Amino acid sequence: MKEKKTRRIKPELLGGFKDYLPNVMIFRQDVFDTIRRTFESFGFLPLETPGLERSSVLGTDKDEFRMEVYRFNDNQNGTGQDVTLRFDLTVPLSRVVAANPELLKPFKRYQRGSVWRKESPQAGRFREFTQFDADIVGSDSILSDTEIIELMYRTLTNLGIADFEIRFNNRKILNGLPEAVGFDSAKAGNVFRILDKLDKIGLEEVLRELQKEPDNQFDETATALDIESAKKIREFLSLSGRNRELLAKAEDFFRGVSVAEEGIRECEKIMENLVGLDIPEDNWKFDLSVARGLGYYTGPVFETTLTELPEIGSVFSGGRYDDLVARYTGEKIPAVGASVGVDRLIAALEKLGKIGKKKSTAKVIISALSENLSLKALQLADWLRSIGVNTEIYLGSGLLKEQIVYAAKREIPFLIILGEDEVKAGKVKLKDMNARKEFLLTERELLDRLSAI
Amino acid sequence: MKEKKTRRIKPELLGGFKDYLPNVMIFRQDVFDTIRRTFESFGFLPLETPGLERSSVLGTDKDEFRMEVYRFNDNQNGTGQDVTLRFDLTVPLSRVVAANPELLKPFKRYQRGSVWRKESPQAGRFREFTQFDADIVGSDSILSDTEIIELMYRTLTNLGIADFEIRFNNRKILNGLPEAVGFDSAKAGNVFRILDKLDKIGLEEVLRELQKEPDNQFDETATALDIESAKKIREFLSLSGRNRELLAKAEDFFRGVSVAEEGIRECEKIMENLVGLDIPEDNWKFDLSVARGLGYYTGPVFETTLTELPEIGSVFSGGRYDDLVARYTGEKIPAVGASVGVDRLIAALEKLGKIGKKKSTAKVIISALSENLSLKALQLADWLRSIGVNTEIYLGSGLLKEQIVYAAKREIPFLIILGEDEVKAGKVKLKDMNARKEFLLTERELLDRLSAI
Repeated sequence: MKEKKTRRIKPELLGGFKDYLPNVMIFRQDVFDTIRRTFESFGFLPLETPGLERSSVLGTDKDEFRMEVYRFNDNQNGTGQDVTLRFDLTVPLSRVVAANPELLKPFKRYQRGSVWRKESPQAGRFREFTQFDADIVGSDSILSDTEIIELMYRTLTNLGIADFEIRFNNRKILNGLPEAVGFDSAKAGNVFRILDKLDKIGLEEVLRELQKEPDNQFDETATALDIESAKKIREFLSLSGRNRELLAKAEDFFRGVSVAEEGIRECEKIMENLVGLDIPEDNWKFDLSVARGLGYYTGPVFETTLTELPEIGSVFSGGRYDDLVARYTGEKIPAVGASVGVDRLIAALEKLGKIGKKKSTAKVIISALSENLSLKALQLADWLRSIGVNTEIYLGSGLLKEQIVYAAKREIPFLIILGEDEVKAGKVKLKDMNARKEFLLTERELLDRLSAI
Repeated sequence: MKEKKTRRIKPELLGGFKDYLPNVMIFRQDVFDTIRRTFESFGFLPLETPGLERSSVLGTDKDEFRMEVYRFNDNQNGTGQDVTLRFDLTVPLSRVVAANPELLKPFKRYQRGSVWRKESPQAGRFREFTQFDADIVGSDSILSDTEIIELMYRTLTNLGIADFEIRFNNRKILNGLPEAVGFDSAKAGNVFRILDKLDKIGLEEVLRELQKEPDNQFDETATALDIESAKKIREFLSLSGRNRELLAKAEDFFRGVSVAEEGIRECEKIMENLVGLDIPEDNWKFDLSVARGLGYYTGPVFETTLTELPEIGSVFSGGRYDDLVARYTGEKIPAVGASVGVDRLIAALEKLGKIGKKKSTAKVIISALSENLSLKALQLADWLRSIGVNTEIYLGSGLLKEQIVYAAKREIPFLIILGEDEVKAGKVKLKDMNARKEFLLTERELLDRLSAI
């Protein structure tokens, strides 16, 4: 069997890419099903868009994206289209909304799909991963933002996860920071970038960096805040307390800054709704540190941490983005949504030992002890399937002993053995693999017994 | 709203690519669900593999594939990997089997996924489309080939399709053609290529072409069959009759050609099994003209035509391919499977007017007539979902009249209207959208009524 060795191809994947073998995939599909069922219970509608789109449409024709996405010319000689594998499902949704103005709004859609990003595989990140998104397009009601958080809560709860925290904030509050603190809003981007390092470098280092003067006349990143502003920032970063308590402190801090006050009122409304819905306060938290990147979101923003695994980051995130559709139409259409990072979530459940271990889809496997009985096996399998029992026929060439090992390894609970003598007597042997018991049954008795499971 | 007109991006797709909006996607998902349920009833296990793989692994680094697949270097400067978007799910399956020798065999897997090919969009073909495959790896039993055909039958039947014909043949029979007809087997590829034109150019033209001498010494495509061989080919192409009748004629024609005799015996066995399974002979047919391309399959081959739309081609095809895993391991592992061309199938069902028209996932939509009632709406929706009723809250800013239009357009059967007075009286108004009737109900009465649906 070792001939032609030199011409063999190594069956390897690209770094950062992954197969999902059945032992994981059965569970993974259960996760997909639960998410879909939950999304549909809120009336979200399914959408599917292509994996490959024009770079200009996805906005990846800008230089800043060059190293982050899979972008190429679709003719190898360079005369074709500039295309990109989608890196999220939100931009394609915005394109769909723009391209189909007749879509009835509010438009609630969900979508599951692969997205591709050039993450570092060394860091254990995936370069192709599945997102499962729900978005509401065409509603600026705070009810929609509430519904997205409620959806996040229900989805994770339905997945059997109890220990999580949905943290939310509002970009409008952060947008009030320049006015509240007293710095030029042109510096906001750089200020936020430095604030983002808080977890990594700590409060004092952040404050030091915020006050740093430019190194030279070309240094555009230095924010050079004065001492008074730095003091206010320290005060802002020290605001603490659970939910209403923090909200009251934020109200004090941002008093008179109208954009922030609007954001705070929205957060208050969301909190009232979540309390009214009896969603446990253990599972959600108003958190001024949630920012969700810079520039994309326009209102409430959400992140979800698994309490036992905070280090893996957010598994379910989103926010309001009222300006995205306008890229195509010029017309502002409000939108809010969230996205489950399914692969990250499942990797986390695996770490927590919460991953289901179903190894088969079949409940019954049939073993025909002679070739003469193979039609009998086909017929019996067909009949069992017709009454709703998922049934496999053993298709290998192993002896009965090996067939039993196969059934045991696949964890198929019942093995039906067809032997010449039994079949002649109108009977079959049923082996209960878990109870390790055998029964000689008529087809009628077999039906009764299998219907019971 | 028309500012910045020049900077707007046209929200257009690439040619040959397609969005599936909810009105089609809901039905499409039902199709996916039915296929999956059927595949699982046979004990097939789910698998997921990446969309992007190494070109060397997919075999697309050969020149002949250059114009047919999406192949590129994954660093734009050309220093990265030579990668290709997968063009089918069978080659990735073979790679998985080769890379995971510990996989218990027979290994029955199903997989749904997008594949990408550079088809001509002008011809209405898709360049990204969904395949849904089932394969049995590690079994050379004819039972497996039978099971694949049975699976094809059950899948289409479960999809509510009655008028279809699964046509099957065996590559071993075709492989016996050189010996039976009397030509050098080195010419087989060119002979089959000419035979493939039968539908297009007709019998006489095919025979003329088969007898053509080479134009010059470099012409390697001419088959130059002698008159005797051409006569035999005419005889072969004229073999007709339904199933057993055709089988008997094929037996006569190929008598003494052992490889063909083996193929015929396999077809006979499959026929016996299908008859034994009571699968109507209207839905399957032994057909010597089925070839499924050249060089890939090694045994039984299958194709499925929708009786009312033969022109769209095969919607469910496959066959036995015993040599594919050996590309990676050098070890021969038998395999057989089939693939549903979901997009082509759904396009056909659309043409036949058989496509479902569900426009919503929600059964109930709640309309809160004042903002004070929005928490009440959230609570009621939450309660309805908890008893299994998919419920949407109207999230737009329209007046009641517009909300009714929204519910009607979405075809949501029930509208619950929350008004201040009713809620104070502990009641809600339920509007049956189909019966065009309204009821004033307590929550208890509402539950009773909605549980009934």
